[in-house]
Amino acid sequence: MSLDQVRDLARRILSHYGLAPDHVAAVAETIVASERDGCTSHGVYRLIVCARTLASGNVVRDAVPEVSNTARSMTRVDAKGGYAQLAFEMGLPTLVENAKQTGIAALAINNCVHFAALWPEVERLANLGLAALACTPSHAWVAPAGGTKPVFGTNPIAFGWPRLDGPPFVFDFATSAVARGEIELHHRVGKPIPIGWGLDTDGRPTTSAGDALAGAMLAFGGHKGSALAVMVELLAGPLIGDMTSAESLAADAGRKSSPLGGELIVAIDPVGFLGVSTNHHIRRAEALFEAITTQGARLPSQRRYESRKRSVADGVLIPRSLHQDLVALL
Amino acid sequence: MSLDQVRDLARRILSHYGLAPDHVAAVAETIVASERDGCTSHGVYRLIVCARTLASGNVVRDAVPEVSNTARSMTRVDAKGGYAQLAFEMGLPTLVENAKQTGIAALAINNCVHFAALWPEVERLANLGLAALACTPSHAWVAPAGGTKPVFGTNPIAFGWPRLDGPPFVFDFATSAVARGEIELHHRVGKPIPIGWGLDTDGRPTTSAGDALAGAMLAFGGHKGSALAVMVELLAGPLIGDMTSAESLAADAGRKSSPLGGELIVAIDPVGFLGVSTNHHIRRAEALFEAITTQGARLPSQRRYESRKRSVADGVLIPRSLHQDLVALL
Repeated sequence: MSLDQVRDLARRILSHYGLAPDHVAAVAETIVASERDGCTSHGVYRLIVCARTLASGNVVRDAVPEVSNTARSMTRVDAKGGYAQLAFEMGLPTLVENAKQTGIAALAINNCVHFAALWPEVERLANLGLAALACTPSHAWVAPAGGTKPVFGTNPIAFGWPRLDGPPFVFDFATSAVARGEIELHHRVGKPIPIGWGLDTDGRPTTSAGDALAGAMLAFGGHKGSALAVMVELLAGPLIGDMTSAESLAADAGRKSSPLGGELIVAIDPVGFLGVSTNHHIRRAEALFEAITTQGARLPSQRRYESRKRSVADGVLIPRSLHQDLVALL
Repeated sequence: MSLDQVRDLARRILSHYGLAPDHVAAVAETIVASERDGCTSHGVYRLIVCARTLASGNVVRDAVPEVSNTARSMTRVDAKGGYAQLAFEMGLPTLVENAKQTGIAALAINNCVHFAALWPEVERLANLGLAALACTPSHAWVAPAGGTKPVFGTNPIAFGWPRLDGPPFVFDFATSAVARGEIELHHRVGKPIPIGWGLDTDGRPTTSAGDALAGAMLAFGGHKGSALAVMVELLAGPLIGDMTSAESLAADAGRKSSPLGGELIVAIDPVGFLGVSTNHHIRRAEALFEAITTQGARLPSQRRYESRKRSVADGVLIPRSLHQDLVALL
């Protein structure tokens, strides 16, 4: 399928399930971007999840996000229970303007349903010349280092950095050892998981995907990853007046829908520190990237950008069975 | 020794090596705080390193840091080649004021010698009711994930969060698998290091501390820790017009002195998002900490605070041989 065809299909399905037009446009772009970049778990496959969520009434389909500046460099968008994408679109201009005027600014998205990756947000900001950080909690699935009971979400952290030639430097990773979907995938095919991904309900390390899903996932990198997970809970939870992952899971009350909560995005304008020397220093950063790639190591997002190039030129391959499932939604 | 005696000794040694009085006061406080909190590697032991560095002329002993606001919410302190502590003290009031006025603000310390941990900085800010993030590159010792040659420093990240009762939530960790000093310690006593700490000069995993010191250290948590190390290089390097770890090591030209470079500190005022509801939400964060500690897991800094309590009450124990070495510096 061409990317235009993917976009069209995404829009038709989202509209079919009653999502308001401005939300349809915003959500479809995220799905197209993910499919295009080879992030298939966040690509058209998600339309099935979206359709289910929309049908179940767990998303406010015609939410009108409300943007307000709570301080000179702080913007809040109340997503009113709708998807995060439109809320981000609506908060973006103020975030960018604040960052350009004061050097650094923050955007809080509250009360949103977040099912997507965070890289589209930080990539957008980096494409506008800003360094950007984003994070969001999810549902309490991950145990703290030294503990056995879930407290944290998979709590991703994303970062973007503008580059003069070509797409920005971007990373986006869960602070859990792996994505929850990865363990679910192992569970579905009955494949054991490696030690280090999860604990069973008795708090013992397990290779059973099912036991880990019932017990607790683990943070990446031991106590350091666990500390970062706490930071995400705080910054995109209480700091912005939104739910922690434990509160989100409690509010979900067993419905197993997408986490409802907040996201924090910080944007920094290098011009604020560097003024007329900005391009000189942004160029110096290229030496760092070169020192990584010339020794054969990969930059985060490198694979994603390669996939993007191919998709833009040749379109994307959607498995026939998935395509049938998608068409059946209409 | 009582903490007053530690302070007195630190001040006398630093003064003896020609450090200007305002720097003496600032550096001595960091050393007292580390010794008090049981961080002995950054405690009075560091006075030996300081004496050597001061004698070698690698620190400007009477540097007068210069504070300037480069944008509404961005402050720069040019440390003029001196220690970072006084520069931080001088930039702190403006950082705090900017954060309180605009909600979020950044402080860059440039051209400083940084030998200390970062937790004193974020703890200070958190004690003033702000959430705070700090990071700094060092010398290029750490290989990127998938690579074999050093590019990053040990690039610590520190975070602080205000708590209503008792000391703040604080973490401070290197993005390398372990501190370089840890490998040096193993090298000194001829103890093997675990696989995962370093690579030899041929890029092979090694258990030899000496080979890892000559080759490359590894990041914590694989490609995720490596990505964070890149972020630190960018944020506390090019973003603030200062050196990357590779540039710092090149500038050192084999003198093996403390890294010279920059530090970035971001402060966020919860009041900017939360207004009159601030204390309510800060209190909600306590449920998160409780969910961690009640299952027997430890909060980062918990051990440090316990050590602090003991030290304030009973003073600290300095090994006799270390005390003799310190007195011999005078």
